[in-house]
Amino acid sequence: MQTDPPLYFAGHVFCCTNERAEGHPRGSCKAKGAERLRDYMKKRAKEMKVRGVRINASGCLDRCELGPTLVIYPEGVWYHYDTEADVDEILERHLIRGERVERLMLQPGQTRLSETAGK
Amino acid sequence: MQTDPPLYFAGHVFCCTNERAEGHPRGSCKAKGAERLRDYMKKRAKEMKVRGVRINASGCLDRCELGPTLVIYPEGVWYHYDTEADVDEILERHLIRGERVERLMLQPGQTRLSETAGK
Repeated sequence: MQTDPPLYFAGHVFCCTNERAEGHPRGSCKAKGAERLRDYMKKRAKEMKVRGVRINASGCLDRCELGPTLVIYPEGVWYHYDTEADVDEILERHLIRGERVERLMLQPGQTRLSETAGK
Repeated sequence: MQTDPPLYFAGHVFCCTNERAEGHPRGSCKAKGAERLRDYMKKRAKEMKVRGVRINASGCLDRCELGPTLVIYPEGVWYHYDTEADVDEILERHLIRGERVERLMLQPGQTRLSETAGK
């Protein structure tokens, strides 16, 4: 096994901001407010002085039915998030304290939001 | 320590396709051909039947001087890539065989391309 270099970002967040044509059966994260929430997350991360973390927008993460979605690497944990309070909780608990926000976490086999714990 | 769910994508590639205004001192990945190369990578990954891997475009990864850049998670390995041959090699060696393409890999403290091994 090769040894990879240390991580460049301790936490790397990708917020899907993909847009589909209106009326598409899968919907899209952008239509569900992802762009506004991603901008808020970036601003809040700065305000909260979250270190070593980058908040990026990304193309379609292909879990549109669960959107808006984001994924945090290197751990590969996915979240659904709807509100600024959700964003604050992900920043504070996951990215600062290293905890998980169970009520918003997505499971690999999950295809509907109602399956999210706490929803 | 919590146990995170299994990964949704075994390999998740983010290709920076950010564009800056022409003449910006940092340059930008898009101005260096990133969008075309990312489209090629997506097409080739399908042709090569690379399983469990997603090739996404992303916003600015903030390593503009080293661009075009991409990062592969969960391992967090970064590459500079310039040509379709570079893309083929990253797909074949890193994503299919689990090797590393040393001549294109970026190191965390690196700020100039000439420091890349083999460049």
